[in-house]
Amino acid sequence: MSEYETDTFESEDEVYELSRRDVGAVLEAVEAGARDELISLMEPMHAADIADLLEQISSADRYALIELYGVEFDGEILSELDESIREDVISALRPEVLAEAVRELESDDVVDLLEDLEQPQQDAIFSALDDADAMVARQALSYPEESAGRMMQREVVAAPEHWSVGDVIDFMRSSEDLPEQFYHVVLVDPRMHPVGNVTLGRIMGAPRKQPLRDLTEEVFQIIPVDQDEGDVAYAFNQYHLISAPVVDDEGRLVGVITIDDAMVVLDEEHEEDILRLAGVGEGSLTDRVISTTKRRFPWLAVNLVTAVLASLVIAQFEGVISDFVALAVLMPIVASMGGNAGTQSLTVAVRAIATKDLTGSNVWRVIRREVLVGAVNGAIFALVMGVVCLLWFSSATLGLVIASAMVINLVVAGFAGTVIPVALEKAGVDPALASGAFVTTVTDVVGFFAFLGLAALVLV
Amino acid sequence: MSEYETDTFESEDEVYELSRRDVGAVLEAVEAGARDELISLMEPMHAADIADLLEQISSADRYALIELYGVEFDGEILSELDESIREDVISALRPEVLAEAVRELESDDVVDLLEDLEQPQQDAIFSALDDADAMVARQALSYPEESAGRMMQREVVAAPEHWSVGDVIDFMRSSEDLPEQFYHVVLVDPRMHPVGNVTLGRIMGAPRKQPLRDLTEEVFQIIPVDQDEGDVAYAFNQYHLISAPVVDDEGRLVGVITIDDAMVVLDEEHEEDILRLAGVGEGSLTDRVISTTKRRFPWLAVNLVTAVLASLVIAQFEGVISDFVALAVLMPIVASMGGNAGTQSLTVAVRAIATKDLTGSNVWRVIRREVLVGAVNGAIFALVMGVVCLLWFSSATLGLVIASAMVINLVVAGFAGTVIPVALEKAGVDPALASGAFVTTVTDVVGFFAFLGLAALVLV
Repeated sequence: MSEYETDTFESEDEVYELSRRDVGAVLEAVEAGARDELISLMEPMHAADIADLLEQISSADRYALIELYGVEFDGEILSELDESIREDVISALRPEVLAEAVRELESDDVVDLLEDLEQPQQDAIFSALDDADAMVARQALSYPEESAGRMMQREVVAAPEHWSVGDVIDFMRSSEDLPEQFYHVVLVDPRMHPVGNVTLGRIMGAPRKQPLRDLTEEVFQIIPVDQDEGDVAYAFNQYHLISAPVVDDEGRLVGVITIDDAMVVLDEEHEEDILRLAGVGEGSLTDRVISTTKRRFPWLAVNLVTAVLASLVIAQFEGVISDFVALAVLMPIVASMGGNAGTQSLTVAVRAIATKDLTGSNVWRVIRREVLVGAVNGAIFALVMGVVCLLWFSSATLGLVIASAMVINLVVAGFAGTVIPVALEKAGVDPALASGAFVTTVTDVVGFFAFLGLAALVLV
Repeated sequence: MSEYETDTFESEDEVYELSRRDVGAVLEAVEAGARDELISLMEPMHAADIADLLEQISSADRYALIELYGVEFDGEILSELDESIREDVISALRPEVLAEAVRELESDDVVDLLEDLEQPQQDAIFSALDDADAMVARQALSYPEESAGRMMQREVVAAPEHWSVGDVIDFMRSSEDLPEQFYHVVLVDPRMHPVGNVTLGRIMGAPRKQPLRDLTEEVFQIIPVDQDEGDVAYAFNQYHLISAPVVDDEGRLVGVITIDDAMVVLDEEHEEDILRLAGVGEGSLTDRVISTTKRRFPWLAVNLVTAVLASLVIAQFEGVISDFVALAVLMPIVASMGGNAGTQSLTVAVRAIATKDLTGSNVWRVIRREVLVGAVNGAIFALVMGVVCLLWFSSATLGLVIASAMVINLVVAGFAGTVIPVALEKAGVDPALASGAFVTTVTDVVGFFAFLGLAALVLV
């Protein structure tokens, strides 16, 4: 009830957003050294929100807060923290606080924490874990990065395929350490190969004598332990899985992945795609100037090369430009329209490749569509710009030149915007990362060449 | 076991992707009119994959397939289909096939299907439902579009807060129609206000006499029925919810949302953001040329205005350009670098706004960082371009001019790339949609003006 009321007091936009007032109150308590006040302010906050708060304040405030908060610091906050400041926060924690915080975590969260840390910090965490947990974590880290093995939790509730509802209920009731969260019982054959999933809800609703085998879910996906995490997330999203068993090379059950972890991966993959499309490497809002500069640099460098290439094209036409300066005024329009149309096509293609909707079966149909769209939009904008040129420079010839160049460049943009990402994907290069540079190079070069080339032919 | 083996036979890239061979086999069966063959090919396929297949083939093939497949057509395929071809497919289905297909669906899936349809098709589906289901669907449609009310399922397993584990197990065992999928029992007070969630796993593991109240989850979020679906998805992702109760204006339990539906929304919101950032309205790979052209048009039109504005700036400097044609060759470089740096900043800002990581608490720190990053990268590329100019045009003055313009434009890009999305968000405009046009206008205008203006001052 209380949570419901809090929600209604906030405006719609700010739901779930940390309010500036709340952050301010926390910072005041930190500055005043008021520990009890701080603890009572943080007590109702979810670990994910505390992590967001730590990300949004300055690093000096962050240290002061952690120092004052002391042993109250929860392991889950570490799991929720952005990687960029996680190392900072871990080194700010006193060893006994870190040890306590880590011991509370589930095995998959510990792995998630460990994999991004440097050796000394990894060691600090390993020494905080008891031997069994440390072994589990080490084994998980032996799987490739970004694989199902890293995502899965090893705590699985499995049952022999011949058991009845009563058998599994008795087993669970007598079991000392059921996982914190589980939604299915995995049925296994004698070789520990998963053969089906039974939801707890169906077990609840069925008579004790019913064989579990009769209650298995229709949709059942088994995840190989070395499968890429992006494909795992795709499978959860595509098939609406809630949890799925993970198997080793011999098909034996080694763990289970639940949808909440798949959702986190889906979110990360999207973030990666959005940022890569804009030429921004992985990174975060809390990164410092130097690391951010380094990460933005490569794409800008590629763009500089592209831009210089385009300039070399322009340089071929210096003569005609100095005779007709209007060409210099107009030429960026053709290149810019091509660049935008190309970006539209490539974004649609990159997204469709990511969702496995653009395949060998429809690639030619999509290319044809993009080319036609380019032609139609090209024709419309050609007409507009032709008229604008006629009015502005009183030259029908110039109008015809820019109109023709516009159609050419928008058709090329539609073609290149689809073919380039598809070709990059085939070549094993992430199309989100590299398509932009190639496509804008094409549209810049073609745009300037078509416009200035036609002008040179017609005007001279 | 069989699925595990299928997976290992495919190369890593192609996991879960419809293979061209499979699609080909289906199309051959359709062409040959081999119904049994078609059914046996489609039988092992998940509804989501069949939907993908229907999206990837031509519309003629689609009609032929649906005709031949006949009564085998499953309701879930309709739910999984992209909106763009859903109407087509529904009108291709014979009425009795449609009725049968729709009757199998859960209430939230029916709503999902209904909301995007035109009136006549909605009526066709309503008349296929029995009265109770139709009433439930009509009520769901009375909630605002894209609200929690549309996402939720109305089948909830709720229990009075004073019940014990034994009470709820007996209740579930005697209940005739438990929902297909449920993960929690929602505890409610006598006014039907939700007071806690208990996972089925905990119920399974606890003794019969234990009060349910002792087993409630620590994290418990209540969703107001009119909350925006994007915020709902955010809450599930942020707080790792598996299911959450939905309440009406008086705080009474009216339904439940499960994480699988939240994941679908999260995916859609991401898709929207990616496409909007590229100036592509909602749409799909199966849209026709005309509708795609229409959707791409507005952004290109905005870009044309932007480009013409930039041309007007250039036109102010026709004199100096006709004296120094090198300016025309070099000016697109400054504008293009600014555009790219601005896009980097704005993408980071748009994404951080979407994840509620960019707030009043850190906005100035982020702006300062972006400006500094622009200054540092600007200085580096200024140096590079200064040297390039010196070598290419043997002019130190030109080198100085382009270097200064580069620094100015990259600093402006960092500033505008952050301030513009933040301001749009404050003004209630989706920053993903509109930031690009504003930021590139700024970087184009500033880029050309700084470069040509400095050149006019120094060279003349």
